[in-house]
Amino acid sequence: MSKLRVAVLGAKGRIGSEAVRAVEAADDLELVAALGRGDTLETLAETGAQVAVELTNPDSVMANLEYCVGHGIHAVVGTTGWTDERLAQLNGWLSASPETGVLIAPNFSIGAVLTMKFAQQAARYFESVEVIELHHPNKADAPSGTAARTAQLIAAARREADCAPQPDATSTALDGARGADVDGIPVHSVRLRGLLAHQEVLLGGEGETLTIRHDSLHHSSFMPGILLGARRVVTTPGLTFGLEHFLDLN
Amino acid sequence: MSKLRVAVLGAKGRIGSEAVRAVEAADDLELVAALGRGDTLETLAETGAQVAVELTNPDSVMANLEYCVGHGIHAVVGTTGWTDERLAQLNGWLSASPETGVLIAPNFSIGAVLTMKFAQQAARYFESVEVIELHHPNKADAPSGTAARTAQLIAAARREADCAPQPDATSTALDGARGADVDGIPVHSVRLRGLLAHQEVLLGGEGETLTIRHDSLHHSSFMPGILLGARRVVTTPGLTFGLEHFLDLN
Amino acid sequence: MSKLRVAVLGAKGRIGSEAVRAVEAADDLELVAALGRGDTLETLAETGAQVAVELTNPDSVMANLEYCVGHGIHAVVGTTGWTDERLAQLNGWLSASPETGVLIAPNFSIGAVLTMKFAQQAARYFESVEVIELHHPNKADAPSGTAARTAQLIAAARREADCAPQPDATSTALDGARGADVDGIPVHSVRLRGLLAHQEVLLGGEGETLTIRHDSLHHSSFMPGILLGARRVVTTPGLTFGLEHFLDLN
Amino acid sequence: MSKLRVAVLGAKGRIGSEAVRAVEAADDLELVAALGRGDTLETLAETGAQVAVELTNPDSVMANLEYCVGHGIHAVVGTTGWTDERLAQLNGWLSASPETGVLIAPNFSIGAVLTMKFAQQAARYFESVEVIELHHPNKADAPSGTAARTAQLIAAARREADCAPQPDATSTALDGARGADVDGIPVHSVRLRGLLAHQEVLLGGEGETLTIRHDSLHHSSFMPGILLGARRVVTTPGLTFGLEHFLDLN
Repeated sequence: MSKLRVAVLGAKGRIGSEAVRAVEAADDLELVAALGRGDTLETLAETGAQVAVELTNPDSVMANLEYCVGHGIHAVVGTTGWTDERLAQLNGWLSASPETGVLIAPNFSIGAVLTMKFAQQAARYFESVEVIELHHPNKADAPSGTAARTAQLIAAARREADCAPQPDATSTALDGARGADVDGIPVHSVRLRGLLAHQEVLLGGEGETLTIRHDSLHHSSFMPGILLGARRVVTTPGLTFGLEHFLDLN
Repeated sequence: MSKLRVAVLGAKGRIGSEAVRAVEAADDLELVAALGRGDTLETLAETGAQVAVELTNPDSVMANLEYCVGHGIHAVVGTTGWTDERLAQLNGWLSASPETGVLIAPNFSIGAVLTMKFAQQAARYFESVEVIELHHPNKADAPSGTAARTAQLIAAARREADCAPQPDATSTALDGARGADVDGIPVHSVRLRGLLAHQEVLLGGEGETLTIRHDSLHHSSFMPGILLGARRVVTTPGLTFGLEHFLDLN
Repeated sequence: MSKLRVAVLGAKGRIGSEAVRAVEAADDLELVAALGRGDTLETLAETGAQVAVELTNPDSVMANLEYCVGHGIHAVVGTTGWTDERLAQLNGWLSASPETGVLIAPNFSIGAVLTMKFAQQAARYFESVEVIELHHPNKADAPSGTAARTAQLIAAARREADCAPQPDATSTALDGARGADVDGIPVHSVRLRGLLAHQEVLLGGEGETLTIRHDSLHHSSFMPGILLGARRVVTTPGLTFGLEHFLDLN
Repeated sequence: MSKLRVAVLGAKGRIGSEAVRAVEAADDLELVAALGRGDTLETLAETGAQVAVELTNPDSVMANLEYCVGHGIHAVVGTTGWTDERLAQLNGWLSASPETGVLIAPNFSIGAVLTMKFAQQAARYFESVEVIELHHPNKADAPSGTAARTAQLIAAARREADCAPQPDATSTALDGARGADVDGIPVHSVRLRGLLAHQEVLLGGEGETLTIRHDSLHHSSFMPGILLGARRVVTTPGLTFGLEHFLDLN
């Protein structure tokens, strides 16, 4: 079986250099190019890259994707900063190259993606849902973006299923005790030396609770998701937003 | 909106009497009969029961279901002891009454069902999977039936996805340290005073772990699943085996 | 060996009736009296009670203890509502009966008492400490009294050891995300159907975390502490406040 | 206040180089020497080192300690391989230098030491105790040395308190399900990609459980313990074995 020819854009960055190693270590993938700032995109065509892993920055990503889609090179994109306008532009390029696939993923951690997916699926079946996220104390925002997003997905699933409001008889509380309110879902942020990035979704019903916990100990946790994206994007034309669409959850 | 007319068979038992209360407490359900040992099944037809919740025992269940299916009464069945032969017999009755639905569920706890489902879905995406189940010390078997079943589902999902064997460099071990081997999945059984019934599925990949934990604190945890079964079985003709088929997991 | 003769006051209450059963079930204890509202205290002297387990209410407790101490009957007290004035009065009676012991305990759960003790001991050795308490959704106050008390003990231990303030770089936060502030210790309150009473103390230092978690599943959890109190109070003259003083923590 | 003058022996090793950085970063400590293989011990006397942090290997440690104790330099020792014979020899040197202190610690992680200490203290107060340790899958032994040691300490504490055997009604079990038996304490070993080193001690009594969990995410977790050892060994003449003796646990 011939190997899938993969290029990494942004190959000198923290995640990019890890992606280079991960592609090299995979039996079914061949690293054909590892481009950093100043390298020419022509290398992609010259090396016959089939998939580009795009890990640069919002300033570079559009030009890179225009080149890739224009040359029929599929792309797996971790770069952030997507707006409706940018997505429309990308969709325009893709409609002119209907066999090419692009995966944009805000989060390549399979554990994080599954946590959100499972939370969303389970949310309607329990009376109560809360989110606790725990991070190192150097983090600037609380709650984390992932926790806020998780709470929003949970809230949307509950609205769609016409769930009753969560039971909560609290009548006397210290400020902040019951957490932040994100679309009606309480979210609690712990900041503790020794932690990295962790999240728990707690669901409770009559006589039972279900807890889904994700512990992220290293950014190498993004690699399995990036490789999975590269393998599947080649047979998934058009734009896919979110790694969850590439997971088989039957 | 008219209420769904529900009967409970085995209404004097521990779970049955709880089911009687749960049906009575539900706004959209009406309890029309609560039958115990010696009561006549004719009551079901006389009271116009639309769904029977069958919580008796292997000696009674077949006669009860023959009556129900024969009278077009849907059934939600928690009684155990199902064999291929019994299922064939039930399917025969159902083919003669094609609009009637029967749900048989080995476990009505939504949390337990979701734990198994999520474990099965996630299993292929992680290098390592282990199961820890924790119960009160009066339990006779180890591992629990639920944990063994969970491990089998995980193993099947991994085989189907051609997962590599789990990494494990253990070369010196005390007997039992690495747990029981259920189809290649390590299962650990904790027995502790103060516990009831708990299960954790631990999944680990590069740089991250995902944990799915179910805590069952009371057998009232079966009620939401029984009610959900009653509501959905009326529009699901034929035999359904397993509550998971009645959950919308999109 | 002769058994210790124990009386229960408030024997008809929820905890009192459980205490009656627990004393009866203990090999080394003999239940000599189980008094409810209206029963005469003279029974204690007549039955030769050595220890009285006092589980009544703030209106009755002082008269009961005056009688016990006056008759040289030791007491284990779960009734609340202690003020400096009441304690002074009790100490007065005890000084007139110097061989008699009284244990007053705000919490008889050994797990809860050890959680507070361990949290207090560990607090000075970690940069970060937070408390998460989780209860059923019918609870009126947040945080729980136990969690607030735990946080105060942690804060006092850290002050005494001249600990630096906890690291926390949070600059953008939703209201409540970082929990309630109890003497500088963040406390988070989760309210979830299916839960009873649970508490986690999280301590974090460079490269490691220590978590102490207490799960209370039933008020029978008070019984081992009450029995332990009864056995030890007979050799501990004077007033002891807090079950932790009866635990050997070497 | 003058700073404490600290030397590191084995300064080129993985832990040693981390110790060098930790000493340099501490306000109250001054790094006066960082010796690797081939460097002369005379440097210690010349630089006026008050404490030596000994992180070499069993071949070097005795000569290093003979020099230190002989010169009145206190020592904090992480090197392993201690036998009764070696300890006797060290005690001999110390009796000739009665003001010098040596701390030998098999584990400098304060979290690990407290976990063992708390487990030992709590063990007698619960009917059931089990240990779960969880490590990366490259670990060769199961259970871990720390878990085995923890179980032994728990077992000893229970013997000393004349605890009854743990309740366990298991009559049908798969091999290994109930874990390894270490002095009567069940120990379960999980091996999972994505984990580092983690341990849970579960204690259960009537209606409640207490869980003590230690998560070690990086070997930097040894540094606070090493620094604490250096600060306290200077006022603790003689041999101290185990960091727990330097922790104030009141």
